[in-house]
Amino acid sequence: MLGRPRRLAILAEGSFNATDAKSAVGVLRYRAEEVVAVIDSARAGRTAQSCAGVGGDVPVVGNLEAAAAFDPDSLLIGIAPQGGSLPSSWRGVVAEALMRGWDVLAGLHTFLADDPELAALAEAKGCRILDVRRPPEGRPIAARRAAGVDALVALTVGSDCNVGKMTAALEIHAFLEKRGVKTAFVATGQTGIFIADRGVAIDAVPADFAAGVVEGLVLEAARDADIVLIEGQGALHHPAYSGVTLALLHGSCPDALILCHQVGRTHLKISDAMPAPRIRSISELVRDYERASGWLHPARVLGVALNTMHLEETEARRALEHEANLTGLTVTDPVRYGAEPLAVALLRRHEERKRRAASA
Amino acid sequence: MLGRPRRLAILAEGSFNATDAKSAVGVLRYRAEEVVAVIDSARAGRTAQSCAGVGGDVPVVGNLEAAAAFDPDSLLIGIAPQGGSLPSSWRGVVAEALMRGWDVLAGLHTFLADDPELAALAEAKGCRILDVRRPPEGRPIAARRAAGVDALVALTVGSDCNVGKMTAALEIHAFLEKRGVKTAFVATGQTGIFIADRGVAIDAVPADFAAGVVEGLVLEAARDADIVLIEGQGALHHPAYSGVTLALLHGSCPDALILCHQVGRTHLKISDAMPAPRIRSISELVRDYERASGWLHPARVLGVALNTMHLEETEARRALEHEANLTGLTVTDPVRYGAEPLAVALLRRHEERKRRAASA
Repeated sequence: MLGRPRRLAILAEGSFNATDAKSAVGVLRYRAEEVVAVIDSARAGRTAQSCAGVGGDVPVVGNLEAAAAFDPDSLLIGIAPQGGSLPSSWRGVVAEALMRGWDVLAGLHTFLADDPELAALAEAKGCRILDVRRPPEGRPIAARRAAGVDALVALTVGSDCNVGKMTAALEIHAFLEKRGVKTAFVATGQTGIFIADRGVAIDAVPADFAAGVVEGLVLEAARDADIVLIEGQGALHHPAYSGVTLALLHGSCPDALILCHQVGRTHLKISDAMPAPRIRSISELVRDYERASGWLHPARVLGVALNTMHLEETEARRALEHEANLTGLTVTDPVRYGAEPLAVALLRRHEERKRRAASA
Repeated sequence: MLGRPRRLAILAEGSFNATDAKSAVGVLRYRAEEVVAVIDSARAGRTAQSCAGVGGDVPVVGNLEAAAAFDPDSLLIGIAPQGGSLPSSWRGVVAEALMRGWDVLAGLHTFLADDPELAALAEAKGCRILDVRRPPEGRPIAARRAAGVDALVALTVGSDCNVGKMTAALEIHAFLEKRGVKTAFVATGQTGIFIADRGVAIDAVPADFAAGVVEGLVLEAARDADIVLIEGQGALHHPAYSGVTLALLHGSCPDALILCHQVGRTHLKISDAMPAPRIRSISELVRDYERASGWLHPARVLGVALNTMHLEETEARRALEHEANLTGLTVTDPVRYGAEPLAVALLRRHEERKRRAASA
C-alpha cells in the first residue's frame, strides 16, 4: 500500500495537459481514486482523461469554489512554476483552501509554511501545510550502509530528467505488489512523495547530506521488503543534476539498475540559452552507470524502460526491439506494455542473491 | 589578493593541533598576518607554531578576555564540531565576542545568525555574524556555461576528504600571483572562504543548485583572471560526498585537474562503524576523474599533489618519484617542495589553449 487515503483537489491552473502538469499527471495516474477534481479555468467542464490522458472521469473545474462541491480535504499544487516559487496569483488560491480548512500539499522550493500569513491561517483553521520538498532535520552522512541490506535494492536511472524514472519504479512496484512480493517504493522527488505520501525530495537536501538521506530511506524501506525500488533523479550526464544522481547511486548502493530513456529525445534538457549535450547511446549509458556504481558497490543494469509515449504502435514496438538487439538487455515500455519483464528480471536477481547468500 | 585585512582571534578550544583544527590551521597558514591570537585554554602560553606547525609567533591564549588584549575585530570559529552544531560551551564565547563588538565568522551547519539571542546581540552592538556556510539565495541551474570561458579553469580533486585539495589550489594560486599571472582562487568550503574572504560552501547548497552555484562562481572569477583555481571537495569514490564532487566537476567544467592524495592513506575516511572502502591507485583515480569529466566536458589531470606531511624527507622524495614513474605525470608536494611544477603545467596548458584558439 502506498500511503493513506485522501480527497485531493489538484491545482493545475492553465497547464493541465500531459506534459506541463507533471505532478498532477503523476498523482492522477497512480492515485486517481483519491482525486476529486482538477482546477484549471482554461479547461473547466472537461474530464482529466480528455486533458491529460489520465484520470478517467475526474472532473476539471474552473476554480476552488467549484472544486469544493466535490468535498476535498486537501489542495495539491500540481504544477511546478519556473524557479520553484509560488506565483502570486496562486497565493490567493492557497489561502482560500486553508480558509476552508483543507490541507495544502506543495512541492515548491519556496516553502509555503514559511509564509507567516499562510502559516497563521493554517494554524487558525487547524489544517496543515505540507511542503514536501522541505529537507529533513537530520544531517546523516552516508557510509555504504545500504550495501548491507538483505532486500534487493533497485534504482531507476536515466538518460535525462523527466524520461520516466519515477514511472518505471512505480509500475514495477505495482506489478510486484500484485504478485504478492513484499516491495517498497522509495520516493525521492515531489511527485513521488505526493503519490506515496512519504519520501524525501533529494534535490532540496544540502549536498553533503543527500546520499545520507537516501541511505536512511533505503535502510528503513528494506526492513519490511524483499525488493526496494528507488525513484531515480536527474542523470549522470546532466550539467545541473549529475551530483544529485551520483548521491542517489552511492547513497542507495543498489544491486540492480533500471535504465530509463524517452525514445526520440536526442539532447539533454538544459537552459534554452545554451547548446544542449547529446544523449549517449543506451550502451554507453549502461557502461557509465555501472562504472559509477562500481566506484563504491557493483550494480548491474538489468533492464531498460523506454518511454514511447510519442510513438505510434509499430514504431514503439520497433524501438523496443531495436534497443533489445543492440544491448542484449530486457527492454520494455512499462506504461504501454506492462512492467512484467523488468519485474521478473529483478525477481530473478533477488533469487540469485538469496541462493548465493544461503550457500555462503 | 585574497580579501580584505582583518584582525582575527581564532577559537580552537581544546583542539589546536595540526590535524583537529582544520580551519584554524588553514587560516594561519595563508593569513597568519591577520591572526592576532588563538584561543585554546589547554595550550595557553605557547605559540601557534609550536602547537600546530603554522602561524609562527602568533600567541595562544586561555580565553576570550586574554585574546582581547591583542585588539581583534573578529572571532573566527576555527574548529568543526561533530555534526556541525555549536557546542553549548562555545555559545557563551560567541556571545562574549559579540558583546565586545567583534564580528563572528563561523562555518557551522547550524547558523549562528538564526539564533535570536545572538542575532539580537549582534544588532545591538553593530557587529556581524558571518555564517559562511549559509547558501546563497539564488537557485541557479548549471548548463555547462563555465566551459565557455577564456580562462584556464583548473579544479583540485582528490582520493578522499582532507587530503590537501584546498592547500594545493592555494599554493598554486600563490605561486602564479608571485609570477604576475592573473589568477583567481574560488573557495568552495568554509576554511577556503575564511582565507579568501569570499566563496560558497558548496556542501551546504541544496543538491539541485550545487553545480549552478559553482558555475556562477567560475564565470565571475574568470572575468578578471587567466587561470581560475577551484578548491575541490570530497571525492568521486566517497560514499557520502561523491555527489558534491561531481556537482563541482560538472558545474565548473574544468580543462585541467590536479589530483590530490595523502601518502599513506589507504582507506577512505567514513564512519568508524562501517568498513571503509580502499582508496584506488593514482592511475585509477586519474582515469575515473577524467571519465566523469568527459561525460560533459573533457578534462585532463595535469599533475598530482601528494601530501607527504607524515613522511620523513627521504621517504617523501621516494613517494613522489614512485608516483611520477607510475603515472608519467608531474608529481610534487606543493607545501613541502613548492607548487612550481603544477603551476607550470597549468601555464603550459593555458598557452596551448590560447594558441589553439588563435589559430582557429
